[in-house]
Amino acid sequence: MNSVVESGGLFGVWGHPLANQVTYFGLHALQHRGQTSAGIVTSEANVFKGHLGNGLINYVFDQPETLAKLTGSNAVGQVRSATSDDLADDSNIQPLLFHFNDRSIAIAHTGNFTEGVTLRQKLEEQGAVFSSNSAAEILIHLIRRNKSDNFQEALEDGLKTLKGGYNFVLLTDDALYGAVDRHAFRPLVIGQFENGAYTLASETCALQSIGAKFVQELSAGQYVIINDEGFEIVQYLEDCHVAIEPMEFIYFSRPDSDIAGVNVHKARKDTGRRLAEEHPAPNAEMVIGVPNSSLSAASGYAEGHNLPYEIGLIKHQYTGRTFIEPTQELREAGVRAKLSVVESIIKGKSIVLVDDSIVRGTTIRHLITILREAGAREIHVRIASPAIRFPNYYGINTMHTSELVAANHTIAELQEMFDADSLGFISVDGLLEATNLPYDTENRGLSLDAYTGRYLDDIGGFRAEFDATLTPIQQAILEGTFVDE
Amino acid sequence: MNSVVESGGLFGVWGHPLANQVTYFGLHALQHRGQTSAGIVTSEANVFKGHLGNGLINYVFDQPETLAKLTGSNAVGQVRSATSDDLADDSNIQPLLFHFNDRSIAIAHTGNFTEGVTLRQKLEEQGAVFSSNSAAEILIHLIRRNKSDNFQEALEDGLKTLKGGYNFVLLTDDALYGAVDRHAFRPLVIGQFENGAYTLASETCALQSIGAKFVQELSAGQYVIINDEGFEIVQYLEDCHVAIEPMEFIYFSRPDSDIAGVNVHKARKDTGRRLAEEHPAPNAEMVIGVPNSSLSAASGYAEGHNLPYEIGLIKHQYTGRTFIEPTQELREAGVRAKLSVVESIIKGKSIVLVDDSIVRGTTIRHLITILREAGAREIHVRIASPAIRFPNYYGINTMHTSELVAANHTIAELQEMFDADSLGFISVDGLLEATNLPYDTENRGLSLDAYTGRYLDDIGGFRAEFDATLTPIQQAILEGTFVDE
Amino acid sequence: MNSVVESGGLFGVWGHPLANQVTYFGLHALQHRGQTSAGIVTSEANVFKGHLGNGLINYVFDQPETLAKLTGSNAVGQVRSATSDDLADDSNIQPLLFHFNDRSIAIAHTGNFTEGVTLRQKLEEQGAVFSSNSAAEILIHLIRRNKSDNFQEALEDGLKTLKGGYNFVLLTDDALYGAVDRHAFRPLVIGQFENGAYTLASETCALQSIGAKFVQELSAGQYVIINDEGFEIVQYLEDCHVAIEPMEFIYFSRPDSDIAGVNVHKARKDTGRRLAEEHPAPNAEMVIGVPNSSLSAASGYAEGHNLPYEIGLIKHQYTGRTFIEPTQELREAGVRAKLSVVESIIKGKSIVLVDDSIVRGTTIRHLITILREAGAREIHVRIASPAIRFPNYYGINTMHTSELVAANHTIAELQEMFDADSLGFISVDGLLEATNLPYDTENRGLSLDAYTGRYLDDIGGFRAEFDATLTPIQQAILEGTFVDE
Amino acid sequence: MNSVVESGGLFGVWGHPLANQVTYFGLHALQHRGQTSAGIVTSEANVFKGHLGNGLINYVFDQPETLAKLTGSNAVGQVRSATSDDLADDSNIQPLLFHFNDRSIAIAHTGNFTEGVTLRQKLEEQGAVFSSNSAAEILIHLIRRNKSDNFQEALEDGLKTLKGGYNFVLLTDDALYGAVDRHAFRPLVIGQFENGAYTLASETCALQSIGAKFVQELSAGQYVIINDEGFEIVQYLEDCHVAIEPMEFIYFSRPDSDIAGVNVHKARKDTGRRLAEEHPAPNAEMVIGVPNSSLSAASGYAEGHNLPYEIGLIKHQYTGRTFIEPTQELREAGVRAKLSVVESIIKGKSIVLVDDSIVRGTTIRHLITILREAGAREIHVRIASPAIRFPNYYGINTMHTSELVAANHTIAELQEMFDADSLGFISVDGLLEATNLPYDTENRGLSLDAYTGRYLDDIGGFRAEFDATLTPIQQAILEGTFVDE
Repeated sequence: MNSVVESGGLFGVWGHPLANQVTYFGLHALQHRGQTSAGIVTSEANVFKGHLGNGLINYVFDQPETLAKLTGSNAVGQVRSATSDDLADDSNIQPLLFHFNDRSIAIAHTGNFTEGVTLRQKLEEQGAVFSSNSAAEILIHLIRRNKSDNFQEALEDGLKTLKGGYNFVLLTDDALYGAVDRHAFRPLVIGQFENGAYTLASETCALQSIGAKFVQELSAGQYVIINDEGFEIVQYLEDCHVAIEPMEFIYFSRPDSDIAGVNVHKARKDTGRRLAEEHPAPNAEMVIGVPNSSLSAASGYAEGHNLPYEIGLIKHQYTGRTFIEPTQELREAGVRAKLSVVESIIKGKSIVLVDDSIVRGTTIRHLITILREAGAREIHVRIASPAIRFPNYYGINTMHTSELVAANHTIAELQEMFDADSLGFISVDGLLEATNLPYDTENRGLSLDAYTGRYLDDIGGFRAEFDATLTPIQQAILEGTFVDE
Repeated sequence: MNSVVESGGLFGVWGHPLANQVTYFGLHALQHRGQTSAGIVTSEANVFKGHLGNGLINYVFDQPETLAKLTGSNAVGQVRSATSDDLADDSNIQPLLFHFNDRSIAIAHTGNFTEGVTLRQKLEEQGAVFSSNSAAEILIHLIRRNKSDNFQEALEDGLKTLKGGYNFVLLTDDALYGAVDRHAFRPLVIGQFENGAYTLASETCALQSIGAKFVQELSAGQYVIINDEGFEIVQYLEDCHVAIEPMEFIYFSRPDSDIAGVNVHKARKDTGRRLAEEHPAPNAEMVIGVPNSSLSAASGYAEGHNLPYEIGLIKHQYTGRTFIEPTQELREAGVRAKLSVVESIIKGKSIVLVDDSIVRGTTIRHLITILREAGAREIHVRIASPAIRFPNYYGINTMHTSELVAANHTIAELQEMFDADSLGFISVDGLLEATNLPYDTENRGLSLDAYTGRYLDDIGGFRAEFDATLTPIQQAILEGTFVDE
Repeated sequence: MNSVVESGGLFGVWGHPLANQVTYFGLHALQHRGQTSAGIVTSEANVFKGHLGNGLINYVFDQPETLAKLTGSNAVGQVRSATSDDLADDSNIQPLLFHFNDRSIAIAHTGNFTEGVTLRQKLEEQGAVFSSNSAAEILIHLIRRNKSDNFQEALEDGLKTLKGGYNFVLLTDDALYGAVDRHAFRPLVIGQFENGAYTLASETCALQSIGAKFVQELSAGQYVIINDEGFEIVQYLEDCHVAIEPMEFIYFSRPDSDIAGVNVHKARKDTGRRLAEEHPAPNAEMVIGVPNSSLSAASGYAEGHNLPYEIGLIKHQYTGRTFIEPTQELREAGVRAKLSVVESIIKGKSIVLVDDSIVRGTTIRHLITILREAGAREIHVRIASPAIRFPNYYGINTMHTSELVAANHTIAELQEMFDADSLGFISVDGLLEATNLPYDTENRGLSLDAYTGRYLDDIGGFRAEFDATLTPIQQAILEGTFVDE
Repeated sequence: MNSVVESGGLFGVWGHPLANQVTYFGLHALQHRGQTSAGIVTSEANVFKGHLGNGLINYVFDQPETLAKLTGSNAVGQVRSATSDDLADDSNIQPLLFHFNDRSIAIAHTGNFTEGVTLRQKLEEQGAVFSSNSAAEILIHLIRRNKSDNFQEALEDGLKTLKGGYNFVLLTDDALYGAVDRHAFRPLVIGQFENGAYTLASETCALQSIGAKFVQELSAGQYVIINDEGFEIVQYLEDCHVAIEPMEFIYFSRPDSDIAGVNVHKARKDTGRRLAEEHPAPNAEMVIGVPNSSLSAASGYAEGHNLPYEIGLIKHQYTGRTFIEPTQELREAGVRAKLSVVESIIKGKSIVLVDDSIVRGTTIRHLITILREAGAREIHVRIASPAIRFPNYYGINTMHTSELVAANHTIAELQEMFDADSLGFISVDGLLEATNLPYDTENRGLSLDAYTGRYLDDIGGFRAEFDATLTPIQQAILEGTFVDE
């Protein structure tokens, strides 16, 4: 599944003599969360230095000098996936760095504000001048327009004004801040180095990569302030409850990360096992997964079903920044640079193909085509996520109902469209059990919006489009009359 | 296992309107065979154009114009791994392109000539001027000094003069040639496009990537000439028999490639199953593989032993061309950019760690260290290759006995050095059976030199060093008195 | 004289089908006005596209595609010399491009606001968020905070708030604007193409370079609005009179430019002739000029004095972007990459050395040293500018009294410091006559601040430093008691 | 005059601790002799390191590390202008570096061998493999095929085999060599540093640039060997006499260089004075020169004629490596990036336009066009070189009679073709007197081939084309019946 773009990875560190290097390697470990641009701002007291650019972090910092120039013991950084809309606009590369007469602020964020457009328009009407399209800049304007002389108060007021799904890291001359939204849709974790310095990261895998120990994960409606005294967590919103974006488990996060204490690989594998129970494939001879995100689920399915787990699809290791795409002529000839079928494994076999999720359906359709071309006899598709039937407005770019194939088609229709011999999605309950988060709320700590359409939070400026594009399937789900799986 | 450097991948095409693009994508699919430099030479009649550079193919061709300038319907290309010795010498990047008053020749090779140094010195004494350190240039000098007016005859004479393990692709104004050595140590395959054009590649995976069908694999002592008439295979050496480098199955090749009709993934998986029989691990709770080359063997072991196959080690997807390495200070803090342990999977567990092979032993030692740090209770190491006890002189850079840890230590010693709870290598017979090549010679089509020390071919100029560095273990093996496994 | 940094060159075009290319070549012709960074923003209706970077314009646009992407028939561009302070801050590269919900604005400026710091601080206190250190952004904030719905009114109000020496080009969805300050310190000219399209440029040489005809020069306190209807000039300030920065004639401008109808080469040559009258050199055998800015004045001096004009100093043609500077060791050995003495011309001769001006005095001191080393017998220094004795606050970075050697030393002292055999500066009257501008005001259209200390305009926030650093020489000049030349 | 391409600049140094830097700055000072590629090879004993590339020297060495890696106290380097033919062939960038089993050799050359093609063919027939199209490689093959064990003997034999106009620098493990041809067509000078180290350079200006003193210029048929003992000059050819390429004085060399003790600027100025005597322009009001190569001659003409010398044509300072050329559309609109007319100087005036030489005539024609467009009333063209009527086969690429406008037209015809009001070339005698070289041979130390067609040296392989393309004018000159000037 490739059609979902994650909104990026955040990193911060305070009081580490090698802040620039630590941030570089921290972002390197978060690179899977965003490949379009990368940036680091370091600081020492009120001297801030930054370097940003398009591309992978090792491309942006392709000269050791560039990183070496970023002196100082504090830093924030970001890796990010731009949508095609804002790809060309370099002003959106983060962290954004603002110099005021009284202080400097570096800020980076991930996610989406449901009232972002309105909020920005209102600020512009009051004379605000935005230098980027980035939502992060809205927070800066809110802070600067706040009457309070106290920065932390102004920040807190600003955060309370925002709605939606977001994470922030923010660096001032005297502190590093990290903040998560009302539902902690996406994780932000605190780590600590042996030398005592604290760090923030979007995933625990970054902590391990840089030799820091996991300390704590920010919970719903919290922010942390880290300074020379240590760290303090502030509950800035009340009546919050955790609702983690399930795609973090299913697709985004690295398998070696833990979210809310649950290992991602383990959750995926258990999802695969559960999927084998819910949707067995009696005649199948082997299980293959779509690399790399579905391999854990596929091996879980294989074990659950007692079938061999085979490497039937190869993802090329050296894809990197390719400037050359096959021409139409070559594409028709079957030229492909990213994924190959292992013909001699597949030929004549009945296989279970496990994928993590289905959004537009184009990838799975393509895979089935090349597997059939390679001689697969039967293809039983199993999906390690429930059918995604409602848009996400909290920071994943699956924002339009029209792009969600399962919002427009029943599973039987999808099976036919994809030319699959059978098709099964894990149930919502199956996902909740396999993930097994330590929360006893109704949704057990996962955000189920995408499956149920009952949004936990107001969807703000997106309501009009949502209502206008409601499909019969969505309608039936909201009315509780839909039966499919 | 990272300490073996493969000598590269070759590609050629004749008579394809998009020769430049086809070669680009062909080399892209062979990128795992060499990452230090890449190059393409295209031609149309006697107009030859080339572009070469250090780095991955998508880095060398980072501007579409660069590739577009390489016009013509014929091409040869190479990706290559340089040893540190010749890294700085750009004159070694291939294909080499020679312009003579009567014709031009582009040539690329992989492998090693056992008499290369002597041959070159002899030619220099006769006044030859070499422009590179590349062995490929020796063949050009042999061809040009040949008295025959017939190019093909001169080429054949030249090839007969060479000894060792090598593959060539060679492009002239009227034909494309591919050649393999007396034992076909490494594969070179012929493919065909729908439009009839023929292509040559080091692995079948490249054929699939560019939409070409597999036609035939060159056998020991053969070369192929491809021109507008089609292709013809010539047996230029007699008394040859196939002895494929086993590392092609174990480590080098992509799992979706077939060698001598045997799929690499399948061979690896069967090796894993066989390893489970030969060296079971009764108390182990799970199997993990060293990514990416050992994953097939690990899943085979898991199935053979009926143990869960887990993702306990993560190889970072975005490593690419990193200019920044952790400083010593960071390294001591545990910063690592390439491989991570999934702590929550490993902690407290007894695991089987499957690796493809052991050369110096540094990687396995490092992996055991970080697995223990992550809390692994027991670590049972299983190696999907027999113990490598003799140097390779046919194109893999494991040339010195001193670098081969198993040439200097028994398995019991290795187990202690690595701090493993147990250690098992697959037997030579096990490997032969798992690979199951369709040859009925004594060695069943594999080169067993590295395990037995009985070299199939003369090792030429390396004999002196070989004799001088013989270890007690090697001596005992050669005398047939060694008992270890 | 190299120690004065000009603040840049501006360019704009409206309604030309090749706006991007025209702007590229226009900026190329203005490159001598700034070499640190370059940028172009093009637009078509409300679609704005920009590309900016550090370095010369041909370095920033080193790929034809980069320029080709800047589609649209309108454009603004800038080349700029950064001071070392802001060199590293890429956010200052212009044109700045702002996207508002109702429109986009691209802006570039040259010059300096005497109240810039105060103004910015006031705006920040009102909550304004600045994304750059650039003064141009102040105007944007003023415009956006204006209550008027009419953009032109808001712009006019904003301009009236500013003080100092500045030029602007500004592009909106429906017009191109150009503005000059109360004294037209630096030129901004309107040109027209054969196809009717209008253009703006900092110098007439840019018009000639792109095949446009000169139409009109903006006068003190004017702005021009160019749109599909044609152009209209608005006198937005009253009680203005022209006071052109004399360094435009003496040093900055290209000799083929005209300012207020006066050709720069001609003015320089006449200055040289006048200098020969005011300060003859009876025993001199030849005249040499410091390349390239002093060659016109030197040839004028030679003609006025009937002495041969020789090429005694060579400026290297290929200096470009050199990343390698002579090490200290090499510098001591006399290695120099930029300027050479023609020894065989100079040796044993009594020469007149004409330089355009003296700021710090380091260049002239260095030149005299290398001329003496080359064997010059006598060196008579003649300066084609009056002694610069007061700082400039209107856009040239000679802002500190301490940096002006003539503010701290009499001419006799300077002659000794420089080791010159004689030293003469042109008089202020001499400069006025040689320039011969068509204005009958007291200062005849030139700004004489740098010589007299009587600033035409308020120097705003710089007053305190000015008063605090007053030297005895400055004091005497202001009191009318100084006699030197 | 831009249509003559010089064949490059050479540099060498032996025994200097900063050999890499000294060579960099030496080549920088020789950059005017070639802008297409640059390269440096350094050595210490038998360790040789090189870096080469396309573009200016500061572009090829755009990273200080690149230069820093070239360790060692000896070096050779080259800057070179490629003809369009070999532009794309990177194998021709020099110095060429050859590694043999017994030694390494780095070599760079300028010039042309009149028997080069034949010589190469002969060597290829003997089995020689050339890696470049460079003539320098021929010498290497000659050396390596020599029977002598003594390198210096082999080199001397090789040099004796060559014919034509050439200079060499050559670096081995124990010496630096420099060689010039039988007529010393182009200079090669020896310099010495204060630390005693010796250096070689194509022009004296490079010595001055790096702080070295001029020691001696190699004379016709000499080579120099420099090693730890000092230097020794060997006369390897007999019956030589000096015949310097006159374009070295007229166009190629930097004005601050001396050739055979004569300063280039002085020679040019005297040529201008003499031109004023031979071809006065009674009604002219001013003299302008074509920048930069004709400025000295123009100021000489102005003085000789007692006319003002004006800057009527501006050559843009920042031309550099421009990737963007005006489109046809823009060119027609008069867009030009390299040379501008100073309209206000020229308008309505009768001018003398001094250019250094005429080859194809395209430049002068273009200049007259733009001067007339700018309003010049009369244009009297004066050329500081005799009419070039015969091709040059010794290293300047004016090799074809068809390209020489004066080989095909009388002066009266040229005047009309160029639309000049009058046209005068300096006479050959005038040039000899103005240059005033210290030789008492018939041609006074200049090569007059281009004017007389009587080649000093055999023109070898070019004879056939020469004879075949003889024009009536050439014929008449050779027969002594031509009267024109």
